[in-house]
Amino acid sequence: MIIVVCLNPALDITHEVAAVDWAGVNRPGTVHDRPGGKGLNVARTLHALGADVLVLGLAGGIAGTGVAEALRQSGVRAALTPISGQTRRTFTVVDGRGGVASFYEPGPGVGAEEFAGFLDGYREAVDDSDAVVLSGSLPPGLPAGTYATLIEAAQGVPVVLDTHGQALHLGATAGPAVVKPNLAELEALAGRPLSVPGGADHGADHRVDHQAVTAAAGELRCAGARAVVVTLGAAGLMAVTGDGGWRARPPAVAGNPTGAGDAVAAALAHGLVLGRPWDERLRHAAALGAAAAAAPVAGEFRPGDYHGALDAVTVEAL
Amino acid sequence: MIIVVCLNPALDITHEVAAVDWAGVNRPGTVHDRPGGKGLNVARTLHALGADVLVLGLAGGIAGTGVAEALRQSGVRAALTPISGQTRRTFTVVDGRGGVASFYEPGPGVGAEEFAGFLDGYREAVDDSDAVVLSGSLPPGLPAGTYATLIEAAQGVPVVLDTHGQALHLGATAGPAVVKPNLAELEALAGRPLSVPGGADHGADHRVDHQAVTAAAGELRCAGARAVVVTLGAAGLMAVTGDGGWRARPPAVAGNPTGAGDAVAAALAHGLVLGRPWDERLRHAAALGAAAAAAPVAGEFRPGDYHGALDAVTVEAL
Repeated sequence: MIIVVCLNPALDITHEVAAVDWAGVNRPGTVHDRPGGKGLNVARTLHALGADVLVLGLAGGIAGTGVAEALRQSGVRAALTPISGQTRRTFTVVDGRGGVASFYEPGPGVGAEEFAGFLDGYREAVDDSDAVVLSGSLPPGLPAGTYATLIEAAQGVPVVLDTHGQALHLGATAGPAVVKPNLAELEALAGRPLSVPGGADHGADHRVDHQAVTAAAGELRCAGARAVVVTLGAAGLMAVTGDGGWRARPPAVAGNPTGAGDAVAAALAHGLVLGRPWDERLRHAAALGAAAAAAPVAGEFRPGDYHGALDAVTVEAL
Repeated sequence: MIIVVCLNPALDITHEVAAVDWAGVNRPGTVHDRPGGKGLNVARTLHALGADVLVLGLAGGIAGTGVAEALRQSGVRAALTPISGQTRRTFTVVDGRGGVASFYEPGPGVGAEEFAGFLDGYREAVDDSDAVVLSGSLPPGLPAGTYATLIEAAQGVPVVLDTHGQALHLGATAGPAVVKPNLAELEALAGRPLSVPGGADHGADHRVDHQAVTAAAGELRCAGARAVVVTLGAAGLMAVTGDGGWRARPPAVAGNPTGAGDAVAAALAHGLVLGRPWDERLRHAAALGAAAAAAPVAGEFRPGDYHGALDAVTVEAL
């Protein structure tokens, strides 16, 4: 069983309106809603891969009830600790003539007793688990060391940590099996640029400086992370581990990068539990990331895209 | 017990944003959400009056789950028949600099089998009830005669009907105890204006033509309604019943008329169950309507406003 922790889930609502009247009453032609937040994308992806997943997290208010119900309907097993605060919603209005407005509710405040209740359930579930994924932002009021606390409480069960900033910095010191920053997150942590002007290596006008990435990843390993996998967008992945370093490049994919990083986190946890060697683990992660980028909705992928991409990924040792 | 039927409930969400960027990302400073729709306003008002209320209705999707959960938390008893369609949401963005944009999701399609399931539960509950309130619009897909069907299925239990258009027209023929149109709804049904230019009788530059209202209400009684109570906004109520006609005028109230009509419907059902004579029933209805108009949120009132208004209402026989 893989536990996916989602402390700050969201309910994502999208309205598509042919021609928005920003000062009047609108009747959207199409309405979408779904549980959101990085952890839930990871959980849905693992569920689609056939893994045994349990989502643990916090949920409160009307949106929290909605998230729990939608997970139940999608078949993803979840045990969400009730909190008095309100699970956040994101509301996006897409104007058919072009233009998008978004409204992001704040995450809920979480009381110390509420977190203690969550931690009790987490400790109990971890005993039966093969891996833990900690993913996404922390809700307001939880200290930046919360992921470090959860890694320690996992008592040796391997943890994949996907977050940023101080939560990543402190989490790395607690010895996670894998941390998975993207390039921008690793740059923010390192405090220096890790790409150089020129080239089109990751779809922009900057070229990844692989030596600098390796150095910054090495610092995260020194801090305590056992392996570091850096997502480079369309340029794929770099991994720095105790068994060596690799680079995995997916086939060229046009698409929506939102959620591709969550697919990579899911694949890394899945490969870890299956005991795949690092090069194969990274091949699957790059292929699944590419398949997720090709899908219209974060947290989903077409199995055909995934399997098709597997052969097209190149993995080379650094 | 009073049954309140709410076939098309809603989840009303409001975001208050200091200065909206209609083409970007916004973080609302204040978020409100609550179950909405006229029937739920009636039910909340009856619950606050101390009446034993049971909400029957239809609910589906994430918003339907949210509505059911919010009712549960507010202590209003509800049995919502699950449907595969999605309960509608209304989303309102209030710009701190002035300006409001609203986004109204469509109501759910309702299948014949789903409605049959609701009807079974309704027939069973009606046996134990003292009155029924049918309030609000019908969701798409339900025929305009749906309220007439529910009045017939009530088998003599008195029904207060608060709707408009064809649903009101057909409902009246099934013999409800009370129908409660507002002036505009009665005008639409009568097919002629019921006010004359000049005066400021209901806060506008038109004066209610009481004789014309009495005539139009009489036509609704001829169609089958046993009593007709017409809400006239700030000008109060007119009632045409088998026991005579009355007019009830509340004290002058500045406020929000949304929900005042629902408070009147609640008071009419409450007075009916308590066996209050018509003049007292109307006094309470006018006072509760005024108290609801003075409250900031539809479906709520301050008890002090209600009791204070009771003495200030004038009721005169027509």
